[in-house]
Amino acid sequence: MSIEAVFHMNTGNGDSSYASNSHFQGTGLQRSLPVLQEAINRIAKDLNGFPRCFKIADLGCSSGPNTLFVVTNILDIFHDICSENNSQVPQFQVFLNDLVENDFNTVFRSLPTFYSKLKKKKGDKRGPCYVYAVPGSFYSRLFPDENIHLFHSSYAVHWLSRVPQGLENNKLNIYMAKTSPTNVFEAYRKQFEKDFTKLLVLRSHEMTNGGHMILMFAGRSKPDPTSEDCCVIWELLAKSLVDMVKEGLVEESKVSSFNVPQYTPYEGEVRDVIQKEGSFSLHSVNGFALSWPTPGINTAKFIRAISEPLIATHFGSSIMDVLFKKYQEHVVDHLATKKGMNYNLIISLIKK
Amino acid sequence: MSIEAVFHMNTGNGDSSYASNSHFQGTGLQRSLPVLQEAINRIAKDLNGFPRCFKIADLGCSSGPNTLFVVTNILDIFHDICSENNSQVPQFQVFLNDLVENDFNTVFRSLPTFYSKLKKKKGDKRGPCYVYAVPGSFYSRLFPDENIHLFHSSYAVHWLSRVPQGLENNKLNIYMAKTSPTNVFEAYRKQFEKDFTKLLVLRSHEMTNGGHMILMFAGRSKPDPTSEDCCVIWELLAKSLVDMVKEGLVEESKVSSFNVPQYTPYEGEVRDVIQKEGSFSLHSVNGFALSWPTPGINTAKFIRAISEPLIATHFGSSIMDVLFKKYQEHVVDHLATKKGMNYNLIISLIKK
Repeated sequence: MSIEAVFHMNTGNGDSSYASNSHFQGTGLQRSLPVLQEAINRIAKDLNGFPRCFKIADLGCSSGPNTLFVVTNILDIFHDICSENNSQVPQFQVFLNDLVENDFNTVFRSLPTFYSKLKKKKGDKRGPCYVYAVPGSFYSRLFPDENIHLFHSSYAVHWLSRVPQGLENNKLNIYMAKTSPTNVFEAYRKQFEKDFTKLLVLRSHEMTNGGHMILMFAGRSKPDPTSEDCCVIWELLAKSLVDMVKEGLVEESKVSSFNVPQYTPYEGEVRDVIQKEGSFSLHSVNGFALSWPTPGINTAKFIRAISEPLIATHFGSSIMDVLFKKYQEHVVDHLATKKGMNYNLIISLIKK
Repeated sequence: MSIEAVFHMNTGNGDSSYASNSHFQGTGLQRSLPVLQEAINRIAKDLNGFPRCFKIADLGCSSGPNTLFVVTNILDIFHDICSENNSQVPQFQVFLNDLVENDFNTVFRSLPTFYSKLKKKKGDKRGPCYVYAVPGSFYSRLFPDENIHLFHSSYAVHWLSRVPQGLENNKLNIYMAKTSPTNVFEAYRKQFEKDFTKLLVLRSHEMTNGGHMILMFAGRSKPDPTSEDCCVIWELLAKSLVDMVKEGLVEESKVSSFNVPQYTPYEGEVRDVIQKEGSFSLHSVNGFALSWPTPGINTAKFIRAISEPLIATHFGSSIMDVLFKKYQEHVVDHLATKKGMNYNLIISLIKK
C-alpha cells in the first residue's frame, strides 16, 4: 500500500486535530534548536557569509503551530548570526513540504500573523521571507538540481513510503512487537533502508554544494527492535484493536492485515545507510528520550492526531471514538507501573 | 476594506464552487494561448534557448480545472518549441499564487493526476516540473529579486487591493453604473491606477532580466466607464439586492455601503499606467468579447462562484440563495432583449 494518497495528520484546529495535539513534537523541536544553530553557524563559515537568497526546505511540515515555529526559529538564528557578524540578512525562500492531503489551507491562514510578527520583531533589518508550499512525497523529487541550501525535517522521516511487504504473519500486532515473527523485523528494516537511502539520494541532487540537512525523527535507543521506547505505544493500540475484535466490533482479519508504515531505527542503522549511500558526511548524532504527553488522555490524542486518517482508511471512521477510549485506558494502565518514553534522534548531515 | 482576509473564489468541488463554474474563464484562457505561445517563442529566441531551470508564476491561480490547465498549456508550448529546435526541455518550477484563503488543498489533490498525465504524455522527454503554492496578495512582494522568468495571470488583476475610498454616495449601486455620481468613476480609476502601478513595480523587481508577463483580465471596449460590456453584470446584482431591500430582507444601508473591489479598465488606461510606471514595454494588446455563460442560471452561478465570500462577509451568508435566484431572473430578463457580453484584455509585457 502506498501511503501517499491517504496519509496525513488530522486536519483543522479541532479537539482531535494535529494542530491541537502536537505539543510533544514541539518539545522535540526545542531540543533540536542547538543542532540547527550549530549547522547554520557552520554554513555561514563555510560560505563565508550567506548567499543573496537563502533557500530552506522543511520536509513533512504538517499543519499546526509547529509548522511556522520551525521557520521562526531558523530565521531567528540567521538574524542573530548576521547581527553578530554585522552582515546583511539574506532574502529567504522557505519551502514547506508535505503530502498532498496535508491541510496546507490551515497553514496559509496563519501566514499573515507570521509575517506581521516577523516585521514587528525584525523591523527594517528583516531579510524578506517568502513562504511557499511544496505538495508531494519526500520519497520523490521535489526540487530542481542544486536548489536548496538547508533541508530540515522533524518527526517525518520515520514514516515509510509504504507498509513493508511480507507482514502477513504479523497477525494481531500492528508494528514490530515482542511477539512478532523474525521476518517482520527484517521486512521493516529493509523498507527503512530502501526509503532512507532514496531520501538521501534525492536530497543530495536537490542540494547546493556544501548543503546541510538536519533530520529529527523517532528512533530507538537499543539495537533490539522490540525495545520499549519505540514499540509500546503501538502495542497498546494493537491491544485496543484486539479488545474490539473480542467484542465483535472489528474483524480479526482486518487487524491482521493492518500494519503501521513507520520505522524507528537504531542509531547504528542510520549510520550504516548514510555510509553506504555515500552522498553525505554525518556531522553529528544526538539521541534523547521524551516522556509521553500526560495525562494518558493526551497520549491518546497525540496518537489519534497522527494516525486517524491511516486507521480510518483501513477500519472505517466509525470505530475511532471507541478505539481511542480503549487506547486511553491501556495507556493509563501502562503509566501506572511504567514510564512512557519515546526516543528521538537528531542527525546533522553535510553534502560531500 | 482590505480584501485580502476575506476574498477568494468559492471553495471545493460542489455545485456553487468556482471549480464547477469557471468554464467562462476557461474559454478566455483558450483565447490567450496564441499570445502565450508567441511570448514563449520570443523568450527562447531572446535567451538563445532556455535556462536549465525555468521559473513560471501564475498570479491569482484560484482553485479548479483552470488552475492546472494553464500550467499544462504552458508546458506543452515549451515542449513543442524544444522539439522543433531539438533542444533540451528545461526543468520547471511553477509557482501558483493566490490569496491565503484560496482553496489550495483542492488544487493539491489534483496534482498526482496532473503529474501522471504529464509523464504519460511526455515520457522521458518531459522536463521535470515542480508545482508549488505561493499564498499572498499579488499587491505585495511574493518572490526574491530577479527570480521569475515568466509571469502569467488570468482573470485576476481586475480585482483591486481594496474597495476604493469615497464611494459613500454610490448608494444603491455596487459598482460603477449609469446612475453613479462622477466621483465614483474617478475613485475606481484612481484605485486601479495605484494598484496596477504597484503590481508592475513589484513584478519588475521579481523578474529576471528580459522577463515576460502575460496578463488577461476583464476590461471594457470603450472609454465610457458605464459601458455595458463590463458593468451590466454587476448592475443586475445591485437590482437583486434592491429587490431584497424592498422586501425587507436586506437593509438599505447595507447595500449603500457595499461596493465591488473590481475595475474593468479601458485599453488606453492600461497603456497609460504601463508607460507612466516605466519598467515594461508593452509588446501586444488583444481585446475580445465573450458571451455570458448560458442559460441565465449559469451566469448566476458564475457570478456567485466568484463573489459569494465577498458578499457573505458583508451581508451574511443567509441571503445567498434568495439573492442569486433573483439575480438569475434578472439575467434571464436581460438576455431576452439584449446580448450579455464581457470584454477581456490580454496584454503581453517585456521587462525593459
